[in-house]
Amino acid sequence: MKLLIILFLCCPFLLAAQTCEKWKVFEITLKGDKTENPFFDVNLSARFSLGNEVKTVSGFYDGDGVFKIRFSPNIEGNWEYVTQSNQKKLNGKKGRFLCIQPSPGNYGPVVVRDTFHFAYADGKPHYSFGTTCYAWVHQGDSLAEITLKTLSNGYFNKMRMCIFPKSYDWNKNEPLLYPFEGKPLTEWDYTRFNPAYFRNIEKRIAQLDSLGIEADLIVFHPYDRWGFSKMDRKTDDLYISYIISRFAAYKNVWWSMANEYDFMKEKKTDDWNHFIKMFADNDPYNRLRGIHNGSVWYDHTNPLITHASIQNEDTHRAKELRVKYKKPVIFDECRYEGNIPWSWGNLTPEEMVNKFWRGVTNGGYVGHGDTYVTEQPLQWPNNSSDELWWSKGGVMKGKSQDRIKFLRQIIESAQGSLSPSKIFEWWMPYSAVSYKNEYFLIYYNLDQPRSQVVNLPGNSIYSIEIIDAWNMTITPVEGEFSGKSLVELPQKPFTALRITKTR
Amino acid sequence: MKLLIILFLCCPFLLAAQTCEKWKVFEITLKGDKTENPFFDVNLSARFSLGNEVKTVSGFYDGDGVFKIRFSPNIEGNWEYVTQSNQKKLNGKKGRFLCIQPSPGNYGPVVVRDTFHFAYADGKPHYSFGTTCYAWVHQGDSLAEITLKTLSNGYFNKMRMCIFPKSYDWNKNEPLLYPFEGKPLTEWDYTRFNPAYFRNIEKRIAQLDSLGIEADLIVFHPYDRWGFSKMDRKTDDLYISYIISRFAAYKNVWWSMANEYDFMKEKKTDDWNHFIKMFADNDPYNRLRGIHNGSVWYDHTNPLITHASIQNEDTHRAKELRVKYKKPVIFDECRYEGNIPWSWGNLTPEEMVNKFWRGVTNGGYVGHGDTYVTEQPLQWPNNSSDELWWSKGGVMKGKSQDRIKFLRQIIESAQGSLSPSKIFEWWMPYSAVSYKNEYFLIYYNLDQPRSQVVNLPGNSIYSIEIIDAWNMTITPVEGEFSGKSLVELPQKPFTALRITKTR
Repeated sequence: MKLLIILFLCCPFLLAAQTCEKWKVFEITLKGDKTENPFFDVNLSARFSLGNEVKTVSGFYDGDGVFKIRFSPNIEGNWEYVTQSNQKKLNGKKGRFLCIQPSPGNYGPVVVRDTFHFAYADGKPHYSFGTTCYAWVHQGDSLAEITLKTLSNGYFNKMRMCIFPKSYDWNKNEPLLYPFEGKPLTEWDYTRFNPAYFRNIEKRIAQLDSLGIEADLIVFHPYDRWGFSKMDRKTDDLYISYIISRFAAYKNVWWSMANEYDFMKEKKTDDWNHFIKMFADNDPYNRLRGIHNGSVWYDHTNPLITHASIQNEDTHRAKELRVKYKKPVIFDECRYEGNIPWSWGNLTPEEMVNKFWRGVTNGGYVGHGDTYVTEQPLQWPNNSSDELWWSKGGVMKGKSQDRIKFLRQIIESAQGSLSPSKIFEWWMPYSAVSYKNEYFLIYYNLDQPRSQVVNLPGNSIYSIEIIDAWNMTITPVEGEFSGKSLVELPQKPFTALRITKTR
Repeated sequence: MKLLIILFLCCPFLLAAQTCEKWKVFEITLKGDKTENPFFDVNLSARFSLGNEVKTVSGFYDGDGVFKIRFSPNIEGNWEYVTQSNQKKLNGKKGRFLCIQPSPGNYGPVVVRDTFHFAYADGKPHYSFGTTCYAWVHQGDSLAEITLKTLSNGYFNKMRMCIFPKSYDWNKNEPLLYPFEGKPLTEWDYTRFNPAYFRNIEKRIAQLDSLGIEADLIVFHPYDRWGFSKMDRKTDDLYISYIISRFAAYKNVWWSMANEYDFMKEKKTDDWNHFIKMFADNDPYNRLRGIHNGSVWYDHTNPLITHASIQNEDTHRAKELRVKYKKPVIFDECRYEGNIPWSWGNLTPEEMVNKFWRGVTNGGYVGHGDTYVTEQPLQWPNNSSDELWWSKGGVMKGKSQDRIKFLRQIIESAQGSLSPSKIFEWWMPYSAVSYKNEYFLIYYNLDQPRSQVVNLPGNSIYSIEIIDAWNMTITPVEGEFSGKSLVELPQKPFTALRITKTR
């Protein structure tokens, strides 16, 4: 009652002042004077403060004489700001806004927690279940709307996506927009960005955020016919500064330095280390940073890398890689469900689901992709105009996504973040994770044991449920279990056990 | 016609003289004088000669005052022999026999050919398709007869089997016989063998030979409650000498130093190297020698090892291990089809078949096992009296053996021994083997490509057939193929392509 009165009294003020939800984007828009090249000529930043908390963030030129500064507040209360610029018209602008409490569904940005896991800033665990639509933002609104509708089914909470347009089999079309002024294929003025290009990406980032999906932004990639993979260091740096200024304030942004960094022959390890450091030094929010390999793994022990972003099909190796890297391990690409000729895109749905289960029940995280060709008659990959989810988005044609959602629900309903468990002897190499001695999840891969001897710890009493990971059923086993227990199993692939301490 | 006349003229002689088929066993039986311990006191050997070919082989005491010398001739013609012994009655015995041509189905012993492959002595290739019944010779005649009937279906051409009895889950019964005089569990006179024990094994070796099955004899193993895994060096050596004298003349004998040698904590690497050398030095026929690991791989580069006998589930690694060891690679154990709780014995039949295909289409060989528990109600493994093929023989309860036979027929009908092929680019990690540029076998693992781009070499014309490795069908693809070809595939697991040069 008291609260209501306070809220009522505050209301006129709340309505009058500018407000911004905690972790959302507060944006300052300023009109500048005309200059030769405002991308280059104008420095702009703002100093935001609330009590002892001070953050300085860079602004950016958004075209048509407009400059913007974006800020994402992490503390509720009254923030003040003042701008700094070498252009008088933009300098010394002051203002304030009220950071209000997050609305339901806004848990804040994802950060690393307990070495191997992720959590939102508000403490809620984040279990990464990603998918991949590399070039979905470059296909125009109508397909993007379909993509968003597909994503709204809640299968995934992370999207791997390229900032630059993509040139690859099943993706030979031109993008609707280009990141620089100039004209295709390669006549670019690398000193002038195309704000509309980045505005489009921001729109998609915000849309993903509203669906609870992290935007794992791929900064560089080798699938290129326009030259964006071969820019010089100065241009690369300018580009990185620009995307930090534009994108970093979105709480769901992750930075992936590259997809298949090792396939970009123009860039060397020093370049990648430089880029990583640049994000670490310049992103005021310290968003998650990863770098994704083709065949040569990056050394993920680099302390500026927040998590290991792996391409490899052996997702059960998460267990070993956790120990090696002492970071969260995400198998962002472990091959995709599909039917294309290239081996990385023709997993059966069963195997895609299996790879998720094996990764998750070995203490890691896994990424999905859907690469089904459907056109009739069959086309050579480089001629095809087929729309594959993995590249363009749209609809998924596979069967794994429902099973992945089922797994996600199981993991999200566990008592805590799961880590590899020693509930089995060394000669029982099944996948098993646990939360303390309270909760165990054991996955029998695609094996068909008729029974299992489980060594339940201590004198506690446990309940056991049998999970059918493919048919998405959970069936309690009759009775109570304690100590060394012989459990009868359904003798078929996709069997898992959920063991929960009851007392 | 001329040949017939010659044969007719020779006939009386052939009937009158002792004869022995090439590569079969010629046996000399001698009655000796009584001694305190004929196993120890008596040295006996025979020198066999035919022209410049001379071989000296050791005899052995077979109980009841009887000594035997076994010899397997490798050249047709008249062999002569003379015995040597420290016992006068056994010394200087002379004799002869006629080695006649092998009858159909007798191809001679298996040897290594072309570094990575096997062939019979007569030149016919031997493609190893093995199975495992560790303790079948210790279960008595009635079960052994069933085992042999099962094997007569022609699934396999190699049997892994233990010389010593086995003590393990689903195999807790006592053997019918023991290898030494004395009484169980551990009161043995290690200076006195029990000839009946070894005679039983010889009978089984010969029965396997008549079915065209190699007997991969496991000399030592850790599954023991009688002490045979912990004998001293002197006893080990005596035992090895004895089994060489008794078994080596059987052309289908292979020597496997141990199963899971690294699980025998009493023996060290030096012991194993000593045993290997002992076989190399003393087996007059130089039968194949391997040593099978548990978790720690033996260094198969040892030049006295003829082939790598591997326990590992990743049979596709055959390709890499060939390069490493420069020898034939057999995954004798890659887990078994079955439903037991132990992870090494609950593969689905699909995965067992997949492991065979992946091994074979990566230039290796693979071994089978069948570990189905069927008893009702379910028993704890250590209480069970269930008969599992992998241990006791009998009948197989799985579904993989028919598919393995199908694969074997495909491999045996190829133009030559297959080696890993580069028909694909490096980013197409399918399993592919070829014989020159004439024959290709490509296996799509359990993937589901809808199509495949195949780079057929040169200007040759090829026919293509689609193999369904599970349903055991072979379907020709319409048309002729040359150069870079797009082939439509059935888009399901267990697909393989057989590509044959037509002109």
